[in-house]
Amino acid sequence: MALVTLSDIQAAADLVKDAVVRTPLLRFDDGLWLKPEVLQPVGAFKIRGAYHALARLPEDVRARGVVAHSSGNHAQAVAYAAKLFGVPAVIVVPDTTPRVKVVATRSHGAEVVEVPMTERESRARELADERGATLIPPFDHPDVIAGQGTIGLEVVADLPDVETVLVPVSGGGLISGVATAVKALSPSTRVVGVEPELAGDAAESLRAGALVQWSPEDRARTVADGLRSEPSELTFAHMRAYVDDIVTVSEEEIGAAIGRAARQARLVVEPSGAVALAAYLARPTGWAASGRTVAVLSGGNVDPEVFARYL
Amino acid sequence: MALVTLSDIQAAADLVKDAVVRTPLLRFDDGLWLKPEVLQPVGAFKIRGAYHALARLPEDVRARGVVAHSSGNHAQAVAYAAKLFGVPAVIVVPDTTPRVKVVATRSHGAEVVEVPMTERESRARELADERGATLIPPFDHPDVIAGQGTIGLEVVADLPDVETVLVPVSGGGLISGVATAVKALSPSTRVVGVEPELAGDAAESLRAGALVQWSPEDRARTVADGLRSEPSELTFAHMRAYVDDIVTVSEEEIGAAIGRAARQARLVVEPSGAVALAAYLARPTGWAASGRTVAVLSGGNVDPEVFARYL
Repeated sequence: MALVTLSDIQAAADLVKDAVVRTPLLRFDDGLWLKPEVLQPVGAFKIRGAYHALARLPEDVRARGVVAHSSGNHAQAVAYAAKLFGVPAVIVVPDTTPRVKVVATRSHGAEVVEVPMTERESRARELADERGATLIPPFDHPDVIAGQGTIGLEVVADLPDVETVLVPVSGGGLISGVATAVKALSPSTRVVGVEPELAGDAAESLRAGALVQWSPEDRARTVADGLRSEPSELTFAHMRAYVDDIVTVSEEEIGAAIGRAARQARLVVEPSGAVALAAYLARPTGWAASGRTVAVLSGGNVDPEVFARYL
Repeated sequence: MALVTLSDIQAAADLVKDAVVRTPLLRFDDGLWLKPEVLQPVGAFKIRGAYHALARLPEDVRARGVVAHSSGNHAQAVAYAAKLFGVPAVIVVPDTTPRVKVVATRSHGAEVVEVPMTERESRARELADERGATLIPPFDHPDVIAGQGTIGLEVVADLPDVETVLVPVSGGGLISGVATAVKALSPSTRVVGVEPELAGDAAESLRAGALVQWSPEDRARTVADGLRSEPSELTFAHMRAYVDDIVTVSEEEIGAAIGRAARQARLVVEPSGAVALAAYLARPTGWAASGRTVAVLSGGNVDPEVFARYL
């Protein structure tokens, strides 16, 4: 299977630079720096991969529009990227999606189609076929992975002697891109994934050396609603090649990290976006031994009531 | 009275660059970009002026230490800057200061001296004399003003066609520096100060053409606890030279802006830090007419209970 390369990611960085915020590294304590992707438009790293995927489409193909199925940050990112390119976007969401997210997606000019949960993927494919539009997957695509990898370039540029990079893991698009970039530029840097214990399928898979499936019901137990997907063959191949380890954090540790990020870094971070910080905070001795560490704060779209609970 | 110049500010930018975060401009909506100074170490722009003031001291003078009187962000900034230079810092605070702020200041290695409110300034001067240390004022000093002005350089570099810059006003160090830089680089850009209605002394002064004093009791009514100081002769001279106007916002508008910054920009902003955004949001029609606008979010140190109230 062909893996994404450093030069793919470097090319992506050039294509996304006008649409993406060059996020700074923020020093959190003596050993930790935060990469605050919550500052991106749409509040999450997803804009990097989504915008890059649209940028790579031939102009006549892109003009026919794009389709995504997601109720989360990927939907917002595709809608926002489509707006920047001036092309139509259709977002297929489960009919259980909170009204506020439907409104947010429509605010970027996207058409939102609500369907029963089980029909999301099939309906998205049908819509793409009917309209000649292109389906933009949330992680299982080389252009999406390369876009997310631009975070890795920035981390190494800003902190060349970084020893450990902590990255949230769900479908694996983010860590695939980041690990590819970091290992190419700084082979001795450790790239460590972080999952909720309650959705720890990628951690188990990496240790087993093969994809281990957890049921959607099991993965749905965590408060980290952006980390309930499972890796694809493509992202798992990147993880096996470039990721040193995947660790897990408890629900309590995730909540504590949200509070610390708000109080100590003045950032609003969603549960899924806080797992890397949670891993650092929960294991200060272990990480202290591993030196200069970066935690990717991947997103900040959280219901105010949920957020307030952790302040 | 000699005013700070563009070249003073450019020299300051060079001196502070390793201690200060180069904050990005974050697009908030079609007309507004945020300058998120909440991302600075210590959570506020104050590190720019404090670090610059320390950097400008002769090495033997700096080695004898620094003194500041403040219970707020300036105290944290002086303590943090002193730690970076490896010199002692004494921070004089009123004995009514919340424990959490005393602990935070001590966490930077500073000595904290608690005195009755009315003795703050005199005790700080005494301590400086006794120890041969240097008093670092919060705003009434050219080096502090030049340090804060580095924000203006960054705004114009990142958004050269900015038409309006909105800046919180208290003692006036921030707006003095920002206005000096912005007007020198982009004379047609409007620089507009923002104060709480309940501490609107600078707005009244600028319109009167002379410093108008409000009582400390009156200025203490606003929730924006960082905006209760009054301009000095030095900062007022900069305002008269370079500031186009100062507008005021209500307590309700400040609270609404805190909520919008959290939900829409994923930033924790303190009441004092939110007034510029509040002015933009409260007058969308007026500002829309004035084109591309930047609001400086000056700080993010807010008690979690106060913050949660506005989510």
